[in-house]
Amino acid sequence: MGTGRSKSSSPKIAHRAAAKWRAGSFASIDDALAVEEPLEIRLGGRRFTLTMRTPGHDEELAAGFLLAEGFVANASELGEIRRVRDSKGADEPNAIDVILNVRADGLRERLKRNFTISSSCGICGKTSIESITQRIVANHSHAKVTASTILTLSAMLRDSQQVFAATGGLHACGLFDLEGKLLAAREDIGRHNAVDKIVGWALTNEMLPLSESMMLVSGRLSFEIVQKAAAAGIPILAAVSAPSSLAVELADEAGITLIGFLRDATFNVYTHRARITG
Amino acid sequence: MGTGRSKSSSPKIAHRAAAKWRAGSFASIDDALAVEEPLEIRLGGRRFTLTMRTPGHDEELAAGFLLAEGFVANASELGEIRRVRDSKGADEPNAIDVILNVRADGLRERLKRNFTISSSCGICGKTSIESITQRIVANHSHAKVTASTILTLSAMLRDSQQVFAATGGLHACGLFDLEGKLLAAREDIGRHNAVDKIVGWALTNEMLPLSESMMLVSGRLSFEIVQKAAAAGIPILAAVSAPSSLAVELADEAGITLIGFLRDATFNVYTHRARITG
Repeated sequence: MGTGRSKSSSPKIAHRAAAKWRAGSFASIDDALAVEEPLEIRLGGRRFTLTMRTPGHDEELAAGFLLAEGFVANASELGEIRRVRDSKGADEPNAIDVILNVRADGLRERLKRNFTISSSCGICGKTSIESITQRIVANHSHAKVTASTILTLSAMLRDSQQVFAATGGLHACGLFDLEGKLLAAREDIGRHNAVDKIVGWALTNEMLPLSESMMLVSGRLSFEIVQKAAAAGIPILAAVSAPSSLAVELADEAGITLIGFLRDATFNVYTHRARITG
Repeated sequence: MGTGRSKSSSPKIAHRAAAKWRAGSFASIDDALAVEEPLEIRLGGRRFTLTMRTPGHDEELAAGFLLAEGFVANASELGEIRRVRDSKGADEPNAIDVILNVRADGLRERLKRNFTISSSCGICGKTSIESITQRIVANHSHAKVTASTILTLSAMLRDSQQVFAATGGLHACGLFDLEGKLLAAREDIGRHNAVDKIVGWALTNEMLPLSESMMLVSGRLSFEIVQKAAAAGIPILAAVSAPSSLAVELADEAGITLIGFLRDATFNVYTHRARITG
């Protein structure tokens, strides 16, 4: 296990001169922007994928992504996650390499399940949405949480969002225990990255499955976020804003309690309401 | 040219029973959700990519995506876009096939530029962010717009968002002329899809390059959105919320006037302010 907290010192905020129009004229301002940079994830030295993300916790991002995509099932399969070095031996800020601890034939099988190749031209893509839904194991967690605990989560996640407070430009994901204690929070320009970083954090700390926990994401909730929560075994998933139709369908199938429009006094429950007590 | 407005009758809103928690108890509600469904885009019958999107304007989505990725340069190269038929001859709601009108050697070159293959295992991904930025041609449009016109755009886009009004779950993208007239608006669960649908609409209507127009997106503005606007030749790009650091950098290089935090009385300009007159 070479993973853990990211030691990257890449800044998450960039300052930029801008002009603000107000009441008929421009004024010069110094604006704080959320940093977006590409991250190249390699598998055993080969380029695997490129994602746009906010720097920091890159190892967690890779770990969570590989879990959600079905390439690893637990922390021991993650093997080692290393920074890629440039020709002078310095760490590349935007590339990491994962040496999976998975037998070659097993890995080939997982790849085949996830990707298909048009051999003549090299274009590839996910074969179909079925390849995702087939992997989902229904969550049978007996976790219970009170409605009043749920109502405290939004404010806690907001308070943890330091970069958002400065830039207005980041999504957030928080993991909570069933008493509503914040276990970890991550911010990222991409909501799915923030979720991957949380799941990767839990994976590398050998906390999976997260059957006694809740996850909250800022903004809206799509199919992909439910898929990631399902892979991590999270029984209760909430969003500050609206879920999509497919997010609700998948949560229903996956045995996940799905909460939307979580505000300070109200929320909606779409699926598996039995986990919420009055 | 077989493209045009989508004739799909797939609904954009799904109704779902939910329970709303308020003041100590649950009440049953009927909630309207934004529909999210996968769309498989094929190239000449081969699976190319899968994207999660809100149904409707699928041909435009494919056209805009292929332009932004550098696979087509104009409407004539798009060839034909067909619905995929199932074994009974009925249209598949979630799959379309694009028969590009591009010579095979030219297509191979474009593919090579965009994708790399690890031949032993079949994993692939974009080679690097450089392959994107290398394609950007700086925008030299002499378009001018008044600040007061810019201040009208947010309200117009909001008024056009019928599905968002019902669900709270959709992003939007609007295209405007320099006098602030709304030319087209699209809503989608994915902001990048809404942009692809707008660009694809303009592409299939042979309106490219859009050198006398402005684009506005709801929410935040990332590198990818600037890339798509650049591919369409749009000189002025605005967002209701914050841009990322890389969005600003790319807009600077690409000669695009980038506007963020566009509200009803104020906005910020990050790059190429000379196009905005007082």
